[in-house]
Amino acid sequence: MTTTTAAFSSKRLTIVGVGLIGGSLARALRRANQCDEIVGCGRDEAHLQKAVELGVIDRYEMDVATAVTGADMVVVAVPLRAMVSVLRGMVAGLSPDAVITDVGSAKGCVVEEARAILGSRLCDFVPGHPIAGTEQSGVEASFAELFDNRGVILTPLEETDPEKYARVRAMWEAAGANVTEMAVLHHDEVLAATSHLPHLLAFSLVNTLASLDERKEIFDFAAGGFRDFTRIASSDPVMWRDICLENRDAVLEVLQHFNADLRQLEDAVRDNDGEAVVNVFTRAKETRDRFCG
Amino acid sequence: MTTTTAAFSSKRLTIVGVGLIGGSLARALRRANQCDEIVGCGRDEAHLQKAVELGVIDRYEMDVATAVTGADMVVVAVPLRAMVSVLRGMVAGLSPDAVITDVGSAKGCVVEEARAILGSRLCDFVPGHPIAGTEQSGVEASFAELFDNRGVILTPLEETDPEKYARVRAMWEAAGANVTEMAVLHHDEVLAATSHLPHLLAFSLVNTLASLDERKEIFDFAAGGFRDFTRIASSDPVMWRDICLENRDAVLEVLQHFNADLRQLEDAVRDNDGEAVVNVFTRAKETRDRFCG
Repeated sequence: MTTTTAAFSSKRLTIVGVGLIGGSLARALRRANQCDEIVGCGRDEAHLQKAVELGVIDRYEMDVATAVTGADMVVVAVPLRAMVSVLRGMVAGLSPDAVITDVGSAKGCVVEEARAILGSRLCDFVPGHPIAGTEQSGVEASFAELFDNRGVILTPLEETDPEKYARVRAMWEAAGANVTEMAVLHHDEVLAATSHLPHLLAFSLVNTLASLDERKEIFDFAAGGFRDFTRIASSDPVMWRDICLENRDAVLEVLQHFNADLRQLEDAVRDNDGEAVVNVFTRAKETRDRFCG
Repeated sequence: MTTTTAAFSSKRLTIVGVGLIGGSLARALRRANQCDEIVGCGRDEAHLQKAVELGVIDRYEMDVATAVTGADMVVVAVPLRAMVSVLRGMVAGLSPDAVITDVGSAKGCVVEEARAILGSRLCDFVPGHPIAGTEQSGVEASFAELFDNRGVILTPLEETDPEKYARVRAMWEAAGANVTEMAVLHHDEVLAATSHLPHLLAFSLVNTLASLDERKEIFDFAAGGFRDFTRIASSDPVMWRDICLENRDAVLEVLQHFNADLRQLEDAVRDNDGEAVVNVFTRAKETRDRFCG
């Protein structure tokens, strides 16, 4: 979608789900001085009060339709499996000029739900995904710099209004991010490979080690490499359950590739085939050094 | 092995293999002012000259037997598959009072080789493994603080002279490390779980992603979690080939556990069994937070 990017501003921006991502977006837009008012919405009142105390949001509403009333920008930053009820809940309260966007880590499922729920407002919905985060969660972990120079992928639909798309793009740029456009399916495949599968593997490995008898001692002798490798296994279990299940097809497909390759490597180790092993390791090292070095 | 730990000192300490580990040990012992002279040995003369220029070693010898002559402490810090030729090469040059230790990441294979090669000097050999390192390698990456408050596992044999054991223990303590004793087999199982398997998985995953068509774009959208998860895939391929092959039995056994558990998790994702998925993720998060938090 080709658009000219205007400066972003909002008279009232509503964030549904004021956690790490929603809270950090609010902080980043405050830093940019782009919002007259930021309204929070969520299920946990103590959590929302905390967000007000921290200066992340100006006020909050517990009811979604009330929270989005009068907002010209609505950001949905809830776990994927809470998306349906949030979208359903907001429809009645949406202003005619409101743009709706989300931050879900999988996009196919969100788009399917939005198609079913938003009706004539589908053109005002811009699916999005900031490629940023930490293993922390909650508004206490949010910070204004989270999106600085990080990627945000937008996956607009055929129906998406180009002006609404441009507003969402401008919002993320105001928050410090670099925005890229991608097809929904392609997004889900790329993220399954670089994010969802690694999380699945990290959770699975730590779970396996927790089952082994010598557990305590195992972790006593874990070095820095293990801590880095398993850091993402400290991520929020519910959020990642949702991601793995909602992006199931793409996750299972890349997992199949992984399993097949791992089986070959296992055979090479069993056969004491040093050349095959070093070839895999070398290609991996060269690839990672090139792209992540 | 119960020993009283005396202060460590050495009139001449020889390090065979002046890389990240060997170089960092030399720097740490210099910092502690515990060695009159540190002699390096290796196959790459330019590399050894660099080590002299950096002040890591005082001088070097290319021949192992010459390098260990007159040394009261010999540290072998070469890749596992170079161990045999180094041990064979040094025997003729060893002083009667010399202690020999190594830093190999697997111990069963080293002990087997030492038994075959060292003969009557086996009692002077103390197998060891510092649980420290980075994905970097080479003397340029070495630093004196690498072992500070990190674990070093020693796996003495029935034949090991307690006084020689005490000297090696004192050396590592002088280098800043915390020394633990462990049986050879147990060491290899624990390290297969917390270090060798994670490296194998990280190398394998990056290799799989490198095979996928959209490679470039995949890595373009890799976030911090992916970088952490795959950092160990930037490790030295030859060193890790040696480790995986030399500790083959323990690596394959823990890999079997991992594969079985991953298969269950895969089934749960395919069956959309949210409870099973969240149970695995929660147990992993709790375990990691408890031991690595």
